[in-house]
This record gives sequence, C-alpha cells and structure tokens, in this order.
Amino acid sequence: MSDKALEIEEIDRRLAGLKGWKREGDVLVKTLEFGSFREAISFMVRIAFEAEAMNHHPEWTNVYDTVAIRLTTHHAGNKITDKDLQLAETIERINWVR
Amino acid sequence: MSDKALEIEEIDRRLAGLKGWKREGDVLVKTLEFGSFREAISFMVRIAFEAEAMNHHPEWTNVYDTVAIRLTTHHAGNKITDKDLQLAETIERINWVR
Repeated sequence: MSDKALEIEEIDRRLAGLKGWKREGDVLVKTLEFGSFREAISFMVRIAFEAEAMNHHPEWTNVYDTVAIRLTTHHAGNKITDKDLQLAETIERINWVR
Repeated sequence: MSDKALEIEEIDRRLAGLKGWKREGDVLVKTLEFGSFREAISFMVRIAFEAEAMNHHPEWTNVYDTVAIRLTTHHAGNKITDKDLQLAETIERINWVR
C-alpha cells in the first residue's frame, strides 16, 4: 500500500509540515547545507541507517558541506509514495540544521 | 602548485593508469557499482576520510548501490589539477570493486 502513488493533494498537505521540502514533478527534493564536509558525511551516514532499515533509499548528491536529496519510488513508476514522505519525515526528525 | 590547471596531455597520460576514469571537459568522472547500498555508503565514508585529509573533496551522487564521482578544482577555476588526479589515484588504491 505504501508503494502506491499518492494524490498531489495528499503530498502537498504532508509537505506543508516538512520545512524546506518541495515537490518537483514526481520527486521530493531538499538541499541541506551543513557547516563542514565532516558534518555532511556524518548526516548521510546517519540517514543511511534509516534508509536501509526502511528499504527505501534516497538519490543524493554531496558537494563539500551540502547534501541535495531527491526522493521518488522506482517501484511505483517513479512516483511519490508514502515511503518517500516517510523518509522525508525521518530525515527532518534527525536533521540537526535548524 | 598542485592547484595549477594541468595540460590535457598530462591528464590523459595519468588517466591511462586509472581504470574506468574519463575526462569530461574539465572534470574527471567515474561511476562505481557496488553490491549493495551498505557497500556504496561504506565506500563513501572510507573515501571521505582521505578527501578530508587531502582537503580536496569530490562531487558525488549515490543512488542505491551506485556512486558517481566528479572531480574538479574550484580554486583553479573548475579545472583539473594534480589534486584531482591524486584523489582519483587514492580512490583506485582503495576501491575494492575489481
């Protein structure tokens, strides 16, 4: 069920509670800027454990102290599903950049 | 000195010894495919220590078990320098995908 593409209205409703997250077509995106490369990589490792436990993985790019995250569900034909929103919510629970 | 843009001839000569690395304009690129997300992230962490010690950092994107790496030197006007080749050489010394 969580692999079912969500309606735009539901996505946008849940995104309203997620600071800095945007919907770009069928992808949820956010770019986080940390104070250093060390922090950026530490963050990625911390999130990697959650992603692996959820069996749902981000597409993400690191450039020095920045991490750009893209979330979509390949199994759902590259649509936004509940899993993407769950991962975004998990990232925000952990994210220490305020 | 290692921040000086290198001549194409020198870059290509040194790239010849680096399996899977290509020059795309002023960027050195390679994509590595691991057996799992865990391995891909472990590799990134391992390389992150080297990059931090060299004070020279990759631009890299992880998608599940794949890591796409791009190396260029911002301080040299986004050109390929000795630092990029040194980091590529370090990555190949460590890379356990053969």
